[in-house]
Amino acid sequence: MKKSDVVKLILKEKHYQAPLNSVGKSFAPTNIALCKYWGKRNQEINLPVTSSLSISLGDKGATAEIKLNSFQDEIKLNGSDVALDSSFSQRLINYLNLFRQPDQIFFSINIVSNIPIAAGLASSACGFASIILALNALFGWQLLDSELSILARLGSGSASRSIWQGFVEWHAGSLEDGMDSYAQSLSAKWPELCIGLLIFNNSEKSISSREAMQRTVATSPLYSAWPDKVAADMIKLKDAISTHDFKLLGETAESNAMTMHATMLSAWPAVCYYMPETIMAMQKIWKLRTQDLEIYFTQDAGPNLKLLFLKKDITSVLNEFNKLEIIRLFDV
Amino acid sequence: MKKSDVVKLILKEKHYQAPLNSVGKSFAPTNIALCKYWGKRNQEINLPVTSSLSISLGDKGATAEIKLNSFQDEIKLNGSDVALDSSFSQRLINYLNLFRQPDQIFFSINIVSNIPIAAGLASSACGFASIILALNALFGWQLLDSELSILARLGSGSASRSIWQGFVEWHAGSLEDGMDSYAQSLSAKWPELCIGLLIFNNSEKSISSREAMQRTVATSPLYSAWPDKVAADMIKLKDAISTHDFKLLGETAESNAMTMHATMLSAWPAVCYYMPETIMAMQKIWKLRTQDLEIYFTQDAGPNLKLLFLKKDITSVLNEFNKLEIIRLFDV
Repeated sequence: MKKSDVVKLILKEKHYQAPLNSVGKSFAPTNIALCKYWGKRNQEINLPVTSSLSISLGDKGATAEIKLNSFQDEIKLNGSDVALDSSFSQRLINYLNLFRQPDQIFFSINIVSNIPIAAGLASSACGFASIILALNALFGWQLLDSELSILARLGSGSASRSIWQGFVEWHAGSLEDGMDSYAQSLSAKWPELCIGLLIFNNSEKSISSREAMQRTVATSPLYSAWPDKVAADMIKLKDAISTHDFKLLGETAESNAMTMHATMLSAWPAVCYYMPETIMAMQKIWKLRTQDLEIYFTQDAGPNLKLLFLKKDITSVLNEFNKLEIIRLFDV
Repeated sequence: MKKSDVVKLILKEKHYQAPLNSVGKSFAPTNIALCKYWGKRNQEINLPVTSSLSISLGDKGATAEIKLNSFQDEIKLNGSDVALDSSFSQRLINYLNLFRQPDQIFFSINIVSNIPIAAGLASSACGFASIILALNALFGWQLLDSELSILARLGSGSASRSIWQGFVEWHAGSLEDGMDSYAQSLSAKWPELCIGLLIFNNSEKSISSREAMQRTVATSPLYSAWPDKVAADMIKLKDAISTHDFKLLGETAESNAMTMHATMLSAWPAVCYYMPETIMAMQKIWKLRTQDLEIYFTQDAGPNLKLLFLKKDITSVLNEFNKLEIIRLFDV
């Protein structure tokens, strides 16, 4: 099963035509997984070993603006041209190739992102989600949400979750063609919930999350226990979200992230995203909890932490972490 | 099965008498596990879930000097009196209680240790091993090495390995009374092998290894995969030791330690012995390896690292880590 086969299953006879000078433009939020996507059962079409559950970060994300171009592709990031032979462009072009008759149409695409690239903030998730949404708009395909989620997944697994705001569950699915592996929005809202970004390092990662994931699955002696951990955490998180049980949400998300990093640290060579600052912040959070401040964290494939707390504690949290960027989640 | 039952099985009809003013005195080296002891199948008599393999640290360890006392116990550490109601003394007295008719004999004991206490350097391992060796000398029991190992184990699991110098294997055993759970010396020598202590913190641990181990077994979702990891590593280490394959030894020991810490980080609440300095040193070691310096590390229940390298590289290693304390292993 190739990516192009999946595209055919979804787009069928849909056309690749757009009115001259028309533009498809769409925003997609980045998302942070509370139960992580870690491990693929199919590398080619990004099918995950387990389900996962995320929250989208409101107005933090990427806007893709796409129009047809005459002679060649043209790629801009935040308004500046990106060389077509760069790894950034190559990954984009490979994805765009799925949506055109080669040599017949070209795209001009501008991605405007308000989050740091490749710093463990799921820049590729919102990037690919915004692109498929923009293509859907440009060509007037009127695809279903589940179809958009599957097509976004072909660009980057976690992009399948960036089609919506709020809480999102990505079903692992079991079919070989992945047609049951898409994300869905959970209806629950939680306006009290806050996320704060604690950024230690904005520079690009020494090892991509894609490579870290592959190495972990291939070499970690502990990875075999990960799917059961996820199954238990998914139940807890959905329970916490539906009852607004913040302690259960925080403990489950933090434990899930710690366990994901544990599988990486036991890989060979070890994958260690901790920086000294990460360790100091973790210790500080654990200490604050003993002082009855309800604060938890999650961590993705990078050194930065994402803090979880409630609106009532914003002042106390800002007192402790003065460089924190607080994300608006449900009121955007 | 209680500790006192195990003692009876071994000591049988042996006496608790010693000539007036006679002294039992013995040194036991501390040891560092290359394949860790992590998890008990019996808390009371310290039976491990898995086998383990260590190297003893030459002249680093503890000397116990024991004589009978008239009216009460008397405990000294490095020549200074220790209050009998301290946790240090209580643990010692509980152990000594196994070896006397209560209210009939008292001990005067002085432990002289040349390693920091409770900083992840197995101070209790050499402590209890030196005590049982000194008692054996004091009472003239002439116990077998395997019996001494079992009795040392009752004080602290890893003490079972501190009866010998060199490489030592502790067999997990399977009997309920633990009579097959003792350590044995491996005959192989490896004079080229060096260990360097990289100490970041000599202060007492925030969480004892005993508690960390219990919490990990009880709460880590990844612990279930640990026994298979150990089984594979034991084979690799014995192979590395018998063929003097340093790469295999270093990779296996480092991977084993990383995996043990991974099980702790995934426990709840997480057990994190990393300090910022630990992370920086790990990253430095990984970088040095890419520059072809053959150096590996292991880490126990504390923030400090123990470096593994060969004599030929002592100068290069000291250039990189100028505070390193290098241990003499096979030439003591």
